[in-house]
Amino acid sequence: MNQIRQASIKRIKKDLEALGKYNSTPGQGITRVLFTEAELQGRAFIKERMRENGLEVREDEIGNIFGRLSGENSDLSPVWTGSHIDTVLNAGMFDGTVGVIGGMEALRIIGESGLKHQRDIAVIVYTSEEPTRFGLGCLGSRALAGELTAEDARRLTDSGSFSSTDERESSLYDVLERLGHDASQISNIKRNPGDVHGAVELHIEQGAVLEHLGMKIGVVSTISAPTDIKIKIQGTQEHAGATPMHLRKDALSAAAELILQLENFARSAESKSTVVTVGKVAVFPGATNVIPGEVNFTIDMRSAVMAEKKEILRKLDSLVESVSAIRRVKITKEITAHDAPADADPHIVSLIENICQENKVAYNKMVSGAYHDSMFISKFAPFGMIFVPSRKGISHHMDEWTDFEDIALGTDLLAHTLFQLSNEV
Amino acid sequence: MNQIRQASIKRIKKDLEALGKYNSTPGQGITRVLFTEAELQGRAFIKERMRENGLEVREDEIGNIFGRLSGENSDLSPVWTGSHIDTVLNAGMFDGTVGVIGGMEALRIIGESGLKHQRDIAVIVYTSEEPTRFGLGCLGSRALAGELTAEDARRLTDSGSFSSTDERESSLYDVLERLGHDASQISNIKRNPGDVHGAVELHIEQGAVLEHLGMKIGVVSTISAPTDIKIKIQGTQEHAGATPMHLRKDALSAAAELILQLENFARSAESKSTVVTVGKVAVFPGATNVIPGEVNFTIDMRSAVMAEKKEILRKLDSLVESVSAIRRVKITKEITAHDAPADADPHIVSLIENICQENKVAYNKMVSGAYHDSMFISKFAPFGMIFVPSRKGISHHMDEWTDFEDIALGTDLLAHTLFQLSNEV
Repeated sequence: MNQIRQASIKRIKKDLEALGKYNSTPGQGITRVLFTEAELQGRAFIKERMRENGLEVREDEIGNIFGRLSGENSDLSPVWTGSHIDTVLNAGMFDGTVGVIGGMEALRIIGESGLKHQRDIAVIVYTSEEPTRFGLGCLGSRALAGELTAEDARRLTDSGSFSSTDERESSLYDVLERLGHDASQISNIKRNPGDVHGAVELHIEQGAVLEHLGMKIGVVSTISAPTDIKIKIQGTQEHAGATPMHLRKDALSAAAELILQLENFARSAESKSTVVTVGKVAVFPGATNVIPGEVNFTIDMRSAVMAEKKEILRKLDSLVESVSAIRRVKITKEITAHDAPADADPHIVSLIENICQENKVAYNKMVSGAYHDSMFISKFAPFGMIFVPSRKGISHHMDEWTDFEDIALGTDLLAHTLFQLSNEV
Repeated sequence: MNQIRQASIKRIKKDLEALGKYNSTPGQGITRVLFTEAELQGRAFIKERMRENGLEVREDEIGNIFGRLSGENSDLSPVWTGSHIDTVLNAGMFDGTVGVIGGMEALRIIGESGLKHQRDIAVIVYTSEEPTRFGLGCLGSRALAGELTAEDARRLTDSGSFSSTDERESSLYDVLERLGHDASQISNIKRNPGDVHGAVELHIEQGAVLEHLGMKIGVVSTISAPTDIKIKIQGTQEHAGATPMHLRKDALSAAAELILQLENFARSAESKSTVVTVGKVAVFPGATNVIPGEVNFTIDMRSAVMAEKKEILRKLDSLVESVSAIRRVKITKEITAHDAPADADPHIVSLIENICQENKVAYNKMVSGAYHDSMFISKFAPFGMIFVPSRKGISHHMDEWTDFEDIALGTDLLAHTLFQLSNEV
């Protein structure tokens, strides 16, 4: 690939494995929750590696870490890459980390190429993409988009169980202050359109589409935005033996009907990006011999096509109405998030596609069903994303796996994309 | 009603309320788990009241309490009544207790009538009808039927959380020994056909059938026997956003299909006594944004007609086969109980019906969907059951309610039935 050297598989593997050692659940997957000891050690490791690679390191008021490779013309708006190093509980070693380690490797091979590039290029660790600690994800990129204020940081509280100092509930604000950040100044990190020339994130697919296609690279056209819904069904809790079928108001049967119909709605949508998942179900009282009186469940709906999400919401409303009436149960619906999909920048997408074609790399142009920090970056900067395959589509699990060769290939494409973007003046 | 005095509503209310005070969860329903402090105090209260009523009290090796009212001819096999005083967690004050307090009141009004009766009549507190502590119900009546041995008592263990002496797991055997029972002799309490002339249990309906009919009394023709099944569905745990609908092996959708079809099977069964309930569901990993990889749920099936249970099991098998194939999930089924229904003794049933008719009490001849100690008593003695209404059908819940007037009416019928049985020589 031109004069930029190929990314080192060995070095990527070494760095990912080293980062994987900072883990609060050894032997049970990787758990690195925001600002716990393991995560703080992971951050220190990354900053140390950035410095070794000759990057200028700084951390902003919400803990986003920037490693800057200076260009010829630092007055121009910079090019960004990066991802996250925090995890869900008992996760794998690739989600997020691939974009950070791969990003650092990309900057290293650009730097070592001796080729001149105009704009600064920064590799960024975004604070807490996962909602594990504070129940809200993308804290760092959200703040960069101006959508997380100091007041929000005061309102966001954990359960206390991730705190190293005491067992009481902590707010994000307090935790930031304890770590020496000036949380009152979070709003100052907001970026505006024009501040960043372009941002490219390397990430594992977290799905099995590339594996099914036998391809190594995905080029993201759109990030499916989530619509999150909570459903509560109230029936009547009665004795399983003593209540004939026709007298029942079984909250679980009603839930089962909704779950199956939601699956049908998603299956019959036009866009393959449209998916609906019920992942969390609570049945009360939850005894073998008691008819469930209440069932709560979550709906995670995503699509690259906003109109399809709206159509499913409309179908859900009429379904809720008919199931309530026929089963004589009460169903309440709360929409907790309803975001619009984020389209990748067509120019960056075609840049990545061209680089793939020039280098004879087969790729799949695809929708990202998972959301990423790039979704928030899209609010102020043109973005693109490069996917590498996830074995069996497994993610958020200790069995998560991506071959290091594939990560290196993604890193090569990332480096070329960042280099070209940096020279756009 | 003849020369036997009417049961005292006031006294029944007083005794039920007094028993209700022995409770380990005041303000959150009544919790009286086998051999916990609250239950031991409840037992002491009952024994004290039995003695005050002139009954001869003894306790057998599994803790069944017998209060005996001697007849003219104690050589004849006795007549039994009784129920239980243990509870599920956060229960009401009527389940079981009505048959114990009502039974004691019945013996009191028989005793006070001055009328002669031939056979001894005993009111019995059966040990642990509820499975709350050891995961198996009807411990006392099961042992009387010879279906619980000393070895079984060694195998039955609790979680340790109900133990007063320490926090370690205890076996039923050890707990009995600590309380001074000779658990090695449990098998000696076994009764054989002929040992008991007849047994009649007064109980709350725990369903809403009587309330729907506007009737105060139910006469049980059959106790529906439970068939208990555990279902485990294994699909593939994947990211909710990154996995298109057609690639999913969603364990929860498969579960929803089974749950709805099981409801259909029960609804289309001929006998109204046939019911199927899914009461307990566990979804793994149980995260909003992860497609469920595993779902476990319980099936509680009951019917007065064994053939209908078998037919549903057959239908379930072919459903499991088709759902496994179409959804590419693995479904395993474990039948943990599959008992035959217990028919009440036709003679005792018509005795109760005649007493109702003579006293112009409207009654509903009905199947008991809930199981009771009488199911085990049926293995060695002719039995009958009298039901009184449960408000809104609610049971196993702090809102459980039965009017004291209705309990007194049931007690009157019980007293007359016991008296007549006692004089059958």
